[in-house]
Amino acid sequence: MRISELSRRSGVPITTIKYYLREGLLPPGRATAPNQAEYDDSHVRRLRLVRALVGVRGLSVGAAKEVLGGVYEREDDPHKVLGLVLGATAEAADAEADKDAELDGARLAEVDALLDALGWRVSDDAAGKAVIARTLQTLGDLGMDYDWHRLLPYAELAGRIAAVDLDGIEDLRDPLEMAERALVLTVLLEPVLLALRRLAQESQSAARRGAGPAQP
Amino acid sequence: MRISELSRRSGVPITTIKYYLREGLLPPGRATAPNQAEYDDSHVRRLRLVRALVGVRGLSVGAAKEVLGGVYEREDDPHKVLGLVLGATAEAADAEADKDAELDGARLAEVDALLDALGWRVSDDAAGKAVIARTLQTLGDLGMDYDWHRLLPYAELAGRIAAVDLDGIEDLRDPLEMAERALVLTVLLEPVLLALRRLAQESQSAARRGAGPAQP
Repeated sequence: MRISELSRRSGVPITTIKYYLREGLLPPGRATAPNQAEYDDSHVRRLRLVRALVGVRGLSVGAAKEVLGGVYEREDDPHKVLGLVLGATAEAADAEADKDAELDGARLAEVDALLDALGWRVSDDAAGKAVIARTLQTLGDLGMDYDWHRLLPYAELAGRIAAVDLDGIEDLRDPLEMAERALVLTVLLEPVLLALRRLAQESQSAARRGAGPAQP
Repeated sequence: MRISELSRRSGVPITTIKYYLREGLLPPGRATAPNQAEYDDSHVRRLRLVRALVGVRGLSVGAAKEVLGGVYEREDDPHKVLGLVLGATAEAADAEADKDAELDGARLAEVDALLDALGWRVSDDAAGKAVIARTLQTLGDLGMDYDWHRLLPYAELAGRIAAVDLDGIEDLRDPLEMAERALVLTVLLEPVLLALRRLAQESQSAARRGAGPAQP
């Protein structure tokens, strides 16, 4: 199909498609003339994914490119693709987090103690470890008595959420499709999980106090 | 104490403290001379909280002011304070989310169906509802077959997380302290929960495939 048809089917304006092509977020079409190219269904699908990552989740073009590039280049090994998706997504999410806060080595040791207690095996440089260490440090700075043991019930529940995530991927055979679904569900469901927690807090807070729903 | 001592004890530079005073994020001290004021322990504590909200969680000064103002003005009713903290926090988090996406009424109806199925009672304009509706819409746009029933296991686990949250607050008697803890834990633990989920995904993905930890 021509670029105009690609735009119509994906709902993405032609100028935006050309920008994504220039930035390498979308692979070039098959050239049919010096200034003309043919696109196929894979372009439609990838374009929707780019729009979801950049438009909905607010990733930078650079971060989205890194995530997508990894997925589409290593489609031969499902485990590698999945590890890459999860890692890159974590890094992309982290890139926007506060990075200049100095990390106390003792806090990182607490995170290792937490992971040991849980029996979780993760790579040494997993981005999530720094996120947790930074938060423990902040809570300490606030004078709150909050050590890693208090994260155990949260970690246990997060582990069950991850199991639901992986169950939703494992029925797929095609590694590319698997990676795509992992990427979309991991990134897109993050705000949903936080929203569900807040709604549950509101509902349970009202119920525990015997009142109606909280009034804003 | 003088402002210099306040700066030393809170670790916040004097110029930043003056900025927070001008913006109303910090209540004025007790004037002892035309250009001099005395601060107390409540200023130290509030200053740390402001720094946590603005510095660590990246809330705008306006959003942080709204959250803090609500907490400190309605300290007479624990339930109201808690409802306000949870609601304001959700709104503050939402203010940075994509708001210009048109919301399909059918998607909002799906969210209501989900809440009905769960038996959760929340206010009609709870910010979390729009977040979930938008994500369902995006998943639909991506051509993913994903209806609200698939969110049920996630919601059930989010409900358990909220129960852990509320348990951690209920032992407090002072409504101001309760609100402060709710605020800190709700906002500051968000990135931790997402990080724990990603670490669990990595660990379980490796275990399910019988491999070592994922290599980045």
